[in-house]
Amino acid sequence: MENKKIEIKNLKGTFDFLPEKQIVRNQIIDILKKNFECYGYLPVETPILNEFDLLKYKYSEGAEILHEIYRLTDQGKRDIGLRYDLTVPFCKVIALNRDLTMPFRRYEIGRVFRDGPVKAGRAREFYQCDVDIVGVDGRFIEVEQMQMVAKVFSELGIDVEIRWNNRKLMCGLLKEFGFKNEEIDEAVSLIDRLEKISRKELIEEFAKLGLTEQKVDELLALFSKNLVEYSDIFASTQNTLLQDGINECLEVEALLQKMSLDNVCNFSPKLARGLGIYTGTVFEFFDKEQRISSSLGGGGRYNKIITGFMDNGQEYPACGLSFGLEPIYYILSQNIAPCMIDVLVVPMGTEVQSMQLAQKLREVGAHVVVELSGRKVKKAFEYANKLGIKYVMVVGENEINSNMYSIKDMQKGEQQSLPLDDILKILKNK
Amino acid sequence: MENKKIEIKNLKGTFDFLPEKQIVRNQIIDILKKNFECYGYLPVETPILNEFDLLKYKYSEGAEILHEIYRLTDQGKRDIGLRYDLTVPFCKVIALNRDLTMPFRRYEIGRVFRDGPVKAGRAREFYQCDVDIVGVDGRFIEVEQMQMVAKVFSELGIDVEIRWNNRKLMCGLLKEFGFKNEEIDEAVSLIDRLEKISRKELIEEFAKLGLTEQKVDELLALFSKNLVEYSDIFASTQNTLLQDGINECLEVEALLQKMSLDNVCNFSPKLARGLGIYTGTVFEFFDKEQRISSSLGGGGRYNKIITGFMDNGQEYPACGLSFGLEPIYYILSQNIAPCMIDVLVVPMGTEVQSMQLAQKLREVGAHVVVELSGRKVKKAFEYANKLGIKYVMVVGENEINSNMYSIKDMQKGEQQSLPLDDILKILKNK
Repeated sequence: MENKKIEIKNLKGTFDFLPEKQIVRNQIIDILKKNFECYGYLPVETPILNEFDLLKYKYSEGAEILHEIYRLTDQGKRDIGLRYDLTVPFCKVIALNRDLTMPFRRYEIGRVFRDGPVKAGRAREFYQCDVDIVGVDGRFIEVEQMQMVAKVFSELGIDVEIRWNNRKLMCGLLKEFGFKNEEIDEAVSLIDRLEKISRKELIEEFAKLGLTEQKVDELLALFSKNLVEYSDIFASTQNTLLQDGINECLEVEALLQKMSLDNVCNFSPKLARGLGIYTGTVFEFFDKEQRISSSLGGGGRYNKIITGFMDNGQEYPACGLSFGLEPIYYILSQNIAPCMIDVLVVPMGTEVQSMQLAQKLREVGAHVVVELSGRKVKKAFEYANKLGIKYVMVVGENEINSNMYSIKDMQKGEQQSLPLDDILKILKNK
Repeated sequence: MENKKIEIKNLKGTFDFLPEKQIVRNQIIDILKKNFECYGYLPVETPILNEFDLLKYKYSEGAEILHEIYRLTDQGKRDIGLRYDLTVPFCKVIALNRDLTMPFRRYEIGRVFRDGPVKAGRAREFYQCDVDIVGVDGRFIEVEQMQMVAKVFSELGIDVEIRWNNRKLMCGLLKEFGFKNEEIDEAVSLIDRLEKISRKELIEEFAKLGLTEQKVDELLALFSKNLVEYSDIFASTQNTLLQDGINECLEVEALLQKMSLDNVCNFSPKLARGLGIYTGTVFEFFDKEQRISSSLGGGGRYNKIITGFMDNGQEYPACGLSFGLEPIYYILSQNIAPCMIDVLVVPMGTEVQSMQLAQKLREVGAHVVVELSGRKVKKAFEYANKLGIKYVMVVGENEINSNMYSIKDMQKGEQQSLPLDDILKILKNK
């Protein structure tokens, strides 16, 4: 045994979730899972430990993510990284299982790790909840995913705004504006940061790409139009990327209207959704009440990355999204967790019979704790009150012999004496 | 983008779980959670990343575990380890939250990491499912936990044997046999390995402790008696540890009989349950059909370790157990996962209406996939067959206008035409 005293604490950016928190987190996860499964997505789990080479291969996030990978070596001297997202593992699963029936829908809810900045709703070890489909192109599935997002947040009781855009439109506009092909990635990343950095920083950054302040204002104006305006202005453009982007956006907008989602979804031409993998429609969802400024998740179409992992000449169009458990929990963390214990059984020297009774109560699904620490009845009632336990049953020899049990409703303060069957009925209907 | 080709593979000892596997794993976890909650244990989650110093502090497993910890350094130069069990994190939670209402029951189901040997039912990254209570001493809670184990495995459909013993009895017998205090730990560890190593190895190992072959046989005989024999032989012993051990065992045996658990639970005097933390009753559970030789989990009373973390002069008696998801899954991996998709909706140029229809089906809890890849009807039926989807609905303009939908039961091969309400009823009752 190690006996040197240490300061017991959690690592920076990591947290314990005690029952009153974890119950709320589990409720969120249950709603996510239920909806993912209702849309036909199936559960998959992948390892946290990965070959470092795999994690940096065609990384789905920007290159900066590579600096945030927790990296280690095992006893076999393997170069290992902890996964930083669930997209790379998904690509790996598709690449390693060539016989999957397409289209393949999967969800994975699990922890990812990033050795980066810590802020509200953001930790170093956190949950992502990813839903992806591979093997289908087109706008229908993109809109179906936005529909699922709206459904999830309506069940979570969060008023959500889904902002959407299209990468072809964005890159087409940037080309139209005069950016060279090799400058587009950087320009996308700057536009992504438009609402996160100051005007001064913005002008400095774009100056590096050769833009005067006046040009920056023109660019901002270009990225502040609505779809009808883009459609009118570029009606006869020869820029096919831009034309495709506009057409895809018009398709999405029409579908959103038909699905009555246009009140939740807003076209947002400045939305870039990070760097990297996206090739068409992108979307990101935000708390309308702005209790947290970062997004609650997002997604979009990415048709190139799995294709790259497969490397067999075939196309693997994909579309998917990720819900962030931490920002959603941050919003709902004020919710009061329900007490998960229904009954406290307090034996008066009848421990064995009380344990048998408890077993019968559990058979109808009740959550039952038997007081087995030998505490007095008064203390047991205090314990029930403290934990918010709904019912207390004090069990003496009389109760057992008569099969009539007293049950006290702790909220109402009412006590009744009832046959076991009636008590089972009460608990079954809870 | 990184373009150098790599070999895409999983790390040794780590695995992907595709839907047909993960569905079965989730069923196991659901049964565990349901039972944990029925016994009043509440969910807690703790980080995977920990201060390395915390992991080695009063380690709950033997010292050899320290060599199996995955260790790394973050950008802030912190010395970090990945958790190797859920007991140390539990002790930490108790130490960091001094205001918890006692007794405190929690469960945690999560991944742990060990850079050790890989074998059937054992991986480097695996799930433990831990249930612990702190703040209650005595035999009742120990037997209640064994009762929960029996309940869990009966629901899992695994015929289980719970072997149990008592550390006081074991250490008392070793003292009685003549081992010195400082030799007891090593002797316990050898007895733990009795059935895992050969007789030759056993004799060699005990020779190091000064035992002849004859003495080893005497020791084996001493650890092969039943409770009545121990009780008779040591009726008037002055060895209080041994006497306490025998008394605790007699109490447990009487309770097991009263709770009708004596057919599942067997007293096993050679059972040591590893090194380290245990101070009284210990138990371990095994597949009666021996499809896997290692245990499916185990636990027992440990009254010292949390007390050590608290360091405030108070006693924190604890009792808990751990289910291994991997060995349980190993046994049940032949189970055929049910298809989780109930309906495939195939639009005949009616994508928008089909997506709206699907939404109505999901409202009653059905899992619905809409064919949105534009495939022909025949291909869609093939897809449904391959995935085992129960119903297929082909939706043309006629169906929508008449509100009469054709639904084909793929198992029975029967097709009906029904009003939407009737279809909702069928799906609701599935």
